[in-house]
Amino acid sequence: MGDFLPLTPSPPHPLFPRGTMQPSIGVTVAKGFRASGVACGLKKTGARDFALVVSDHDCVCAGMFTTNRVQAAPVLYDQATLAQNSDAIRAVVANSGCANACTGDAGLADTRATAAATARALGCRADQVLVLSTGVIGQRLPMEKILQGISLAAPSLNDEGGDDASRAIMTTDTRPKVFAVRNSQYAIGGMCKGAGMIHPNMATMLAVITTDAKIAPELLARALRSAVAVSFNRVSVDGDMSTNDTVLVLANGASDCEIHTTQHVAEFTHALTQVCTDLAKQIVRDGEGATKFVEIVVTGARAEEEAVRVAKAIANSPLTKTALYGGDANWGRVVAAAGYAGVAVEPAQMQLWFGAVNVFANGMPTQFDEADSARAIAGADIAIRLDLGQGAASATVWTCDLSHDYVTINGKYRT
Amino acid sequence: MGDFLPLTPSPPHPLFPRGTMQPSIGVTVAKGFRASGVACGLKKTGARDFALVVSDHDCVCAGMFTTNRVQAAPVLYDQATLAQNSDAIRAVVANSGCANACTGDAGLADTRATAAATARALGCRADQVLVLSTGVIGQRLPMEKILQGISLAAPSLNDEGGDDASRAIMTTDTRPKVFAVRNSQYAIGGMCKGAGMIHPNMATMLAVITTDAKIAPELLARALRSAVAVSFNRVSVDGDMSTNDTVLVLANGASDCEIHTTQHVAEFTHALTQVCTDLAKQIVRDGEGATKFVEIVVTGARAEEEAVRVAKAIANSPLTKTALYGGDANWGRVVAAAGYAGVAVEPAQMQLWFGAVNVFANGMPTQFDEADSARAIAGADIAIRLDLGQGAASATVWTCDLSHDYVTINGKYRT
Repeated sequence: MGDFLPLTPSPPHPLFPRGTMQPSIGVTVAKGFRASGVACGLKKTGARDFALVVSDHDCVCAGMFTTNRVQAAPVLYDQATLAQNSDAIRAVVANSGCANACTGDAGLADTRATAAATARALGCRADQVLVLSTGVIGQRLPMEKILQGISLAAPSLNDEGGDDASRAIMTTDTRPKVFAVRNSQYAIGGMCKGAGMIHPNMATMLAVITTDAKIAPELLARALRSAVAVSFNRVSVDGDMSTNDTVLVLANGASDCEIHTTQHVAEFTHALTQVCTDLAKQIVRDGEGATKFVEIVVTGARAEEEAVRVAKAIANSPLTKTALYGGDANWGRVVAAAGYAGVAVEPAQMQLWFGAVNVFANGMPTQFDEADSARAIAGADIAIRLDLGQGAASATVWTCDLSHDYVTINGKYRT
Repeated sequence: MGDFLPLTPSPPHPLFPRGTMQPSIGVTVAKGFRASGVACGLKKTGARDFALVVSDHDCVCAGMFTTNRVQAAPVLYDQATLAQNSDAIRAVVANSGCANACTGDAGLADTRATAAATARALGCRADQVLVLSTGVIGQRLPMEKILQGISLAAPSLNDEGGDDASRAIMTTDTRPKVFAVRNSQYAIGGMCKGAGMIHPNMATMLAVITTDAKIAPELLARALRSAVAVSFNRVSVDGDMSTNDTVLVLANGASDCEIHTTQHVAEFTHALTQVCTDLAKQIVRDGEGATKFVEIVVTGARAEEEAVRVAKAIANSPLTKTALYGGDANWGRVVAAAGYAGVAVEPAQMQLWFGAVNVFANGMPTQFDEADSARAIAGADIAIRLDLGQGAASATVWTCDLSHDYVTINGKYRT
């Protein structure tokens, strides 16, 4: 089917020069999807807070959800709905400003009412509508505003509406997050929001991905699990896991390109992973208060799972994250975090690099130049590589620094 | 043997009115111990940075150490020394300003040389001296300064030197930390330092506890394990585990009170736990950037271990800690943290209190008054109680908030 070309907002890809294509439309890149994003008063600022993504055809759909024991009403609802209907989904309705978590049976009834009202507006069944919510925990959905949102969003649906939709799901995000790839036959595009409560195993992270490929439910679910494992589950902003994390992928088959051979599935999975990885990295880059994007690569592990554990321990270490914020190449904190990851690492076998600067080997700091290591972490993009010297497995995790602004944002989130 | 009376610095205990007793002398409260704390140039500020604690008699000694796979030279040395000699320890020598971690064989040789030089100055064997180091990781001990420290500290030893010693082990601590208890027959007193890299399973935490009770090595080791499990291992400042954590307890038997009956052992363990708990709480109160002391009590768990896991998840949640810093009674973040603790909690069974205000029950927020909950977390001491509604086990964990100052302190620690 040929190579997948990324449709990145910037710089424009040569095959999709600015003007001829709007890669920012994310979920509406694939054929047969329309979207909209409107304001219905959930956000005090009057900004867009209500999004709708609709397919003209029934969609095969797969979802992955937070593993938190405390799950928001829409998470419970979507899981139950997908268990009954994973091949005729028509719409995803999403609101920001209110997470509808810890709201009990009443909250679940609100989610059901949201799906039912959306279905009425679109002329489909309620069990063809999935619901996403993000925002403050423990407050009931203001249903009159939700109904207002539906009445505004449904007539606004259009095939370039992905941009508006991606803005409507933002909370403390400072910018919308979209990405898409396509080859000669089909496209995969998505949007997501993140910012806080971002942690391995999903986050206050909502993502909706659409494709016009044709694929069976079990193949789509498997591709999504594979893609999420190395993308959304490899990012961390603050180590907190949310009650609302959801990734949905909808395949409407509008391209008539059927994904069934082993090679097709591999290509599709690779392309879906590309989309998920780019979206996940965008979440980290826009982490609450983040001033630096940090890629942590752990190599030389005995097993991938061990590499992941070490990389995540480093990614979640407040001391490492504050040091990076302060521009302090404090390799000792990285080594110490690796030491408490619960993996049998051996300091004498470990080697650590900040960028290209090898700062640690043989259980000791190398004779590196402090100016070089400081330069290696001075920019907005930092690469840390730790070789454990124990095997051939590796893993990559993305995180950001921990700044004064993170504390400011989260000290006063509700007020 | 009668009740143990705490010797707290303030307010003075009626039996030890100010002037007749100096409870601030910590490790020199028990008979037969002398200490000193001097400046040998490890700290740029010229503050005390070198401490010595010496017993006039051989001591039974027990130690607990960081479980980090990356262990500092003094941690390796002390464990090896105690494995050979746990009943004839004479001295503990401690420096701040340099952790002697990630310094390889040379660092281990420096620790051995420190012990040997201290032994020469005191007229004992090198294997009777234990070594503690705290400070920056990855730098060699400046041995000429260490030798200078020994030559200054040895002649300064005195039986009220515990205060000086407790000041000499401070790093980013803002105040010394000592505590002691005594009954009619013997005393237990200690000092510690903490501040950063504080996390369950020990921390950049050094503690030295002395007692003039007479006790066998295996009984002392068992009492220490029991005491540390519910004190030092129940505090968290930032979730980072250090390379240097050490708790040592030395018993020199100078009181002639022998601890051997079951009741004696229980009393001794209780008193040791009191000392460890008070010291551990002092570490949290003086956590880097801390503005609030938070006691998290989890009740209604099926097992103590599950209560600990839930309490620690809450204690380590950056979102919870920043909310408390900001005075935001954001119960949703507490509930969410409980949800990802890896324990099969059920939101509908959980009840949460800030102080006396029940904010969450039946899977939902209660009809509490926001002003009441805000008042409950407005002070410097915050009590959070979460009942899981699943059993009879409970656990208490202490932590602090996450403030702008934490970020400031750790963004620039080395410079």
